[in-house]
Amino acid sequence: MQTKLNEEKKEIEFAIEQAKKQREISISEFFTKNRHLLGFDNPLKALSTAIKEGVDNSLDACEDANIMPEILVELKQTTPERFLIIIDDNGPGIVKQQIPRIFGKLLYGSKFHKLSQSRGQQGIGISAAALYGQLTTGKPIIITSKIGKNNPAYYYELHLDTSKNEPEITKEEVVEWARDHGTRVEIEMEGKYQKGKRSVSEYMKYTAVANPHAKLTLVEPDGTRIEYPRATEVPPIKPKEIKPHPEGVELGNLINMLKSTESRTLQSFLTSDFSRIGPKTAKEICELANVSPNSRPSRIAKQEADNLFQSIKKTKFIAPPTDCLSPIGQEALEKSLRKEFDAEFYAATVRPAAVYRGNPFIIEAAVAYGGNLSKEEPAEIIRFANKVPLQYQQGACAITKSIMSTNWKPYGLHQSGGNTPIGPLVIVVHIASVWVPFTSESKESIAHYPELVKEIKLALQECGRYLSKYIKKHIQAKAERERINLFEKYIPELAASISKLSDTSKSELEDNLKIILTQQLKILNKEDGTIKED
Amino acid sequence: MQTKLNEEKKEIEFAIEQAKKQREISISEFFTKNRHLLGFDNPLKALSTAIKEGVDNSLDACEDANIMPEILVELKQTTPERFLIIIDDNGPGIVKQQIPRIFGKLLYGSKFHKLSQSRGQQGIGISAAALYGQLTTGKPIIITSKIGKNNPAYYYELHLDTSKNEPEITKEEVVEWARDHGTRVEIEMEGKYQKGKRSVSEYMKYTAVANPHAKLTLVEPDGTRIEYPRATEVPPIKPKEIKPHPEGVELGNLINMLKSTESRTLQSFLTSDFSRIGPKTAKEICELANVSPNSRPSRIAKQEADNLFQSIKKTKFIAPPTDCLSPIGQEALEKSLRKEFDAEFYAATVRPAAVYRGNPFIIEAAVAYGGNLSKEEPAEIIRFANKVPLQYQQGACAITKSIMSTNWKPYGLHQSGGNTPIGPLVIVVHIASVWVPFTSESKESIAHYPELVKEIKLALQECGRYLSKYIKKHIQAKAERERINLFEKYIPELAASISKLSDTSKSELEDNLKIILTQQLKILNKEDGTIKED
Repeated sequence: MQTKLNEEKKEIEFAIEQAKKQREISISEFFTKNRHLLGFDNPLKALSTAIKEGVDNSLDACEDANIMPEILVELKQTTPERFLIIIDDNGPGIVKQQIPRIFGKLLYGSKFHKLSQSRGQQGIGISAAALYGQLTTGKPIIITSKIGKNNPAYYYELHLDTSKNEPEITKEEVVEWARDHGTRVEIEMEGKYQKGKRSVSEYMKYTAVANPHAKLTLVEPDGTRIEYPRATEVPPIKPKEIKPHPEGVELGNLINMLKSTESRTLQSFLTSDFSRIGPKTAKEICELANVSPNSRPSRIAKQEADNLFQSIKKTKFIAPPTDCLSPIGQEALEKSLRKEFDAEFYAATVRPAAVYRGNPFIIEAAVAYGGNLSKEEPAEIIRFANKVPLQYQQGACAITKSIMSTNWKPYGLHQSGGNTPIGPLVIVVHIASVWVPFTSESKESIAHYPELVKEIKLALQECGRYLSKYIKKHIQAKAERERINLFEKYIPELAASISKLSDTSKSELEDNLKIILTQQLKILNKEDGTIKED
Repeated sequence: MQTKLNEEKKEIEFAIEQAKKQREISISEFFTKNRHLLGFDNPLKALSTAIKEGVDNSLDACEDANIMPEILVELKQTTPERFLIIIDDNGPGIVKQQIPRIFGKLLYGSKFHKLSQSRGQQGIGISAAALYGQLTTGKPIIITSKIGKNNPAYYYELHLDTSKNEPEITKEEVVEWARDHGTRVEIEMEGKYQKGKRSVSEYMKYTAVANPHAKLTLVEPDGTRIEYPRATEVPPIKPKEIKPHPEGVELGNLINMLKSTESRTLQSFLTSDFSRIGPKTAKEICELANVSPNSRPSRIAKQEADNLFQSIKKTKFIAPPTDCLSPIGQEALEKSLRKEFDAEFYAATVRPAAVYRGNPFIIEAAVAYGGNLSKEEPAEIIRFANKVPLQYQQGACAITKSIMSTNWKPYGLHQSGGNTPIGPLVIVVHIASVWVPFTSESKESIAHYPELVKEIKLALQECGRYLSKYIKKHIQAKAERERINLFEKYIPELAASISKLSDTSKSELEDNLKIILTQQLKILNKEDGTIKED
């Protein structure tokens, strides 16, 4: 009996002891331990991730404010293992009060709750870079920002309090800054700088391809200055914000939306808090759910909400508006590609907008072929999501899978099994969406939504058809030319034989045969030339 | 002038407008939108992820409290698209006050800050399952828990307030419950139930393999009851908690630890807040960093902390203690494998502990070969991390890559290129660590740390060598037997020839030759038999 009581006492004590250990984990602590989820796996990747996060923010800010971006990225090596990263833009600047939280708090930003295309979407990126800098060097992130010519420039040094996920201001002052407006970010971190594949300069080059309106400059640690000039002076169309589309809503969201709406009736809630629900459709939904359109949204019970949800699921809606998207555009994409790759043939295509889980998206694809591109290697794949190049986790990405599962042989390319086609080819795919479904917070690859894969494949097939026309003509012309050259060799022999048979002089025959051949060649070259200008 | 002023006014207004949109994103909102990061990509996976999170928690709780686990998983289909999941355990139970936060708040738990092997590590899993249930069905998560025979059982119905990441108690009462202690969790969610590959029953089977001390029961939606009995009555060794090892510390962590330590001197901080730093080493570190061992840790300046960090990096330390780990064990792993797979040959191996980023880990591997396993297909790969089976993202996992980059041909298996070997083979790999570096929050695959890959390959090679011995003998014996059978056919002819040459009777020769062959066969079969018992 005594033992039993003791045993139970022990059990209860255990549960109480456990309870003391239970506590909240701050999001900063979580990501510090799981930094590879944010792209800070190793010094090489950490450096390029930090730059990417900074440049993404600059481009987004400029686009929002209708400013043609001029962005400088500068790297300085401070110790054999540490680098100072500087990202300096002519963007709209950030108001003083917001600076600490934007750069010193994870999950803070303006883009998460907004339904329109933007590079950033989670409010994690730049503060994660600051966090990584602090973790590896103990140094603060430094921000200088100015919102207008007659406004002061504010200078901040910030640490992140990881246990609270709050910024800690260590220095705050007004400084002189030559820019009219803009933001300058400085982070020192452990890193490794490398040229070539997956390098910072590759990232800058690809960013220039996807953002032909941006002027970018990179100063490498050894002082090399690389300029990426604008390919166009036309600013991109600024994406508009849309309301959620009913096809993408889930019961839980619907309940939350009903709770927090400012609409006073269910009818006005449905028509004003969603896109593509008109007054007539709203009435039909209410009728089908057996709920009055005049009900107060906040008073809708769980079961009624479920009924509403079921009737929404049964209703057909027009596709969501697509002015929330800002594709690169066929012409601009092709132009950028011409500027950055030395090939013979270029083609680009933009698919009509499509929808996954209620989110509109547009797929753009482009190819560059021939010229100085390597003939023996697999095609170079360039992946973009909302105009941001994706450099890592290529194998896991829906874009790569779509390329590999497309049959490239009919277009005149070599391809073994379900692999990347082989040849002098660059393949570019861009997905533009109000919400890109990444496979991790580091935003390196796109999840396999069937709707996305389908559209990517259609875009690739379109490019493939253009390419196939070029390859066929090009190869046919080449083969023809070879045949003519071969024939030329036999002219003397042929002329001699015909001369014997026809009693014509051999040299006359030779001359005539040569004239015919030259004419053929001219036609051929002309055809070839026309295609080149395609 | 006026235009310029207007323009600037517009710029400033833009920055202020933007500032209004900046706001905090709650971790629940973040994961609701990014649910695929947590393993809730689709109805099929959502169901199995939820069950996995629940069972992981039950097993962890039992292990902590030295209880031999008895866990019931029951599934009931409530509508064509919805299922009620019940997970019922005999664990230690949870004290009343903690129930709401453990099940209704993301990033809350006891395992994140603890350095010892456990299945859960982030405090996300079960609340994420509750969140998904709420999102798809609007229903609360229901918990019943009791910490001792004479204590009441508490019943809770909880919703998650996603905008605050806090639990919302919708029902709370004391109920009668037959168990002495334990926890019962009920979640209703959209889901899909399927048998076969990646099914819930596969998860249960693999869990039984990795947890031979657990008694598991699964009741499928159609009422089928599957029992997974214990393979051993010996409880696993309970892992101990350790202090961080100096090799894994980073400057940022060191600064935080110095700030929050209870030690009054740097000397005592180093010896008591880390594992494997003795008084002598502590003095040497301080000396090298030019900081007095008597300094107050909270008064150490950033630069001094950096110096300390640099001297720690230059110091050699003994590997961390490994009693924080609880491997399955060679014998238990082999036994489990025998119980679940019908093969001819079994072998298991446990590697000595190794370290990555200061975290100790142990790799265990096992193989099953022959018998009823499929001969023509790639080997079945079973991956475990801290005794939890990993069912998804096999291609992205360090275990898979290690298997594919191991050369299996010398061990007598077919393998083309860098693919999975082909043959009647099951390969099991278990990584046990105080911190498993997963590639995403859904904990489906392990990141490619070189130290992990190296140890996995060594373990596989060890299993390969055992396997090779078996295959060689087995195949040799088979080939020998075939040769004997062939020889038997020629006995009459051979006997006739010898009879002619030697003047011996043909039938006598035939009989003698047959006796020799029979003896050979007996030896062969005996050898084969011995190996079978290996």
